[in-house]
Amino acid sequence: MSKFWASIPEVNDELEAINNIILETNTLGHKYLNDSLNYMFSSGGKMLRPAFVLIGSQFGDQATKSRLHNLAAAVEILHSATLIHDDIIDEAYLRRKQPTIQAKYSKEYAVYMGDFLFSQCFLMLAEYEVSTDVLKYMAKGINIVCRGEMLQNALRYDQDISTRNYLKIITGKTAALFAASLSVGAKEAGADEALVKSLAKIGGHVGMAFQLIDDLLDYESTAAEMGKDVQGDIVKGYYSLPMIKALKTVYGDDMKAILNKKSITSSEVTTLIDWSRQSGGVESTRRLAEKYTAKAMKGVHDLPEGRGKDLLLQIVPMLLERKY
Amino acid sequence: MSKFWASIPEVNDELEAINNIILETNTLGHKYLNDSLNYMFSSGGKMLRPAFVLIGSQFGDQATKSRLHNLAAAVEILHSATLIHDDIIDEAYLRRKQPTIQAKYSKEYAVYMGDFLFSQCFLMLAEYEVSTDVLKYMAKGINIVCRGEMLQNALRYDQDISTRNYLKIITGKTAALFAASLSVGAKEAGADEALVKSLAKIGGHVGMAFQLIDDLLDYESTAAEMGKDVQGDIVKGYYSLPMIKALKTVYGDDMKAILNKKSITSSEVTTLIDWSRQSGGVESTRRLAEKYTAKAMKGVHDLPEGRGKDLLLQIVPMLLERKY
Repeated sequence: MSKFWASIPEVNDELEAINNIILETNTLGHKYLNDSLNYMFSSGGKMLRPAFVLIGSQFGDQATKSRLHNLAAAVEILHSATLIHDDIIDEAYLRRKQPTIQAKYSKEYAVYMGDFLFSQCFLMLAEYEVSTDVLKYMAKGINIVCRGEMLQNALRYDQDISTRNYLKIITGKTAALFAASLSVGAKEAGADEALVKSLAKIGGHVGMAFQLIDDLLDYESTAAEMGKDVQGDIVKGYYSLPMIKALKTVYGDDMKAILNKKSITSSEVTTLIDWSRQSGGVESTRRLAEKYTAKAMKGVHDLPEGRGKDLLLQIVPMLLERKY
Repeated sequence: MSKFWASIPEVNDELEAINNIILETNTLGHKYLNDSLNYMFSSGGKMLRPAFVLIGSQFGDQATKSRLHNLAAAVEILHSATLIHDDIIDEAYLRRKQPTIQAKYSKEYAVYMGDFLFSQCFLMLAEYEVSTDVLKYMAKGINIVCRGEMLQNALRYDQDISTRNYLKIITGKTAALFAASLSVGAKEAGADEALVKSLAKIGGHVGMAFQLIDDLLDYESTAAEMGKDVQGDIVKGYYSLPMIKALKTVYGDDMKAILNKKSITSSEVTTLIDWSRQSGGVESTRRLAEKYTAKAMKGVHDLPEGRGKDLLLQIVPMLLERKY
């Protein structure tokens, strides 16, 4: 289990139980398939989404542990499916310091393995007879994730991408599943609808802030690392908010002149990053991240007192303040 | 709509209504995404699976048309998702005489579009509050489809692939969704469990026969066309039953000598096909297809009298006798 949870042993223990369910559930009759699934689920991510399901469940009192753990496992399996497909698109070779499924097996196999895990999530929800409400929250969450991915792909290389569309993309990429995780946990535990909706909002805001901070980091790393990730993204036509904002300033024309080149050098990427800072694109992104963080924390403070609120008060800052 | 249904206007009309639901449901806020979805669903397939949902519903009396049409649309959307992903793997350029999504847009986009349609199916089922039973049948069906795809991919280039594993693959590839379609239609209409199970079996047998006949066709086409499809499959390491059977005969060693070559010529493919015939591989596959056809027809004959049975008595032979 990731060290992230070391300070909260109760969550850590439950996440280990959930990881065991994931490993047991994804067992097939064929060695090659089994090995690949074991490989995927033994790499020890932070399991943020299942943790959010657990925390959400603290806001009701009707959850049974086994049903909750299955729901949390289904959420993580779904998340894994999206990671596997993302790694195909990004041609990523490493994730959590291990070769990705597409690199270790093949892109073809990765397409099908992602589909299979998608179907496993669906099957677990069906077999555990989740309520219609939980099913709807999950289905909507998944749907927004997929819309975001399609949109991101459709808007590659678009130098005039609007802030609004970028926020839609990251809503799908990160916020939707954070929101779904907190809210299905609460719904499963019988929390009332207003509280479930508040938790969905909090999860969404945490997700937005989390992703924007990730984007910022790329533009703020130390010189030695600077531009390493951004360079790949820029070359592949994925522009994140600091640059999107900068492209709309007086720096825009010069930046587009670089982006329109057939190939972009490392030093040109450094220039793009410098301009993103100088133009205020980075600062403007930081303000937006802070806005979402503030919204998330305001939402948490407004929650009813209890263990769930305490956990969010502890974890949300760990997630969002890590990098300021 | 495909001419396949010209002789059954009632089914034809309902399939048109279902196709309209599919087009309306898959509308997004972005032109590029919308265009791609419209493109996908305007190419006029036979819509066999939604037709099976409709026919299945004839075995109960509780289906409302709108719910049924939504269920049928969800099944077709799911099927489309699998086709889009299959075309990525197969690097297929044409489907229904039009460029595939992966060819017209990109492989990346096709991965996400398939995922999106997968999620759309799921969302429709959730929003129409399908019963837990229908959800389970659908989820299991999808799951078997994905297992079959993973297994097929894992067993590429395996010259010793067992008949049993090959049958597992085509159970996923074709039979599982045929079975799910007939049975969810019946379940939605309130048919009793024994009848739903019989219909699932019939759907499965029709699917197996359908796929085996497809495989046979490749080995029986006229000389001019012969080997065109098979050649692609063989080069990509997908061996179908006529050759799998032949590989287990005295022809096996000579066949493997060809398969082990770095590249295989057209005339070598012709040789492989000839040997698959001479060794009895084709004949043995034909007998198996006939066995599944007979099982399917026996099942149909045993069904209670009514419009559903009449439709199956008309359609199953159209599907399975088309090529003998």
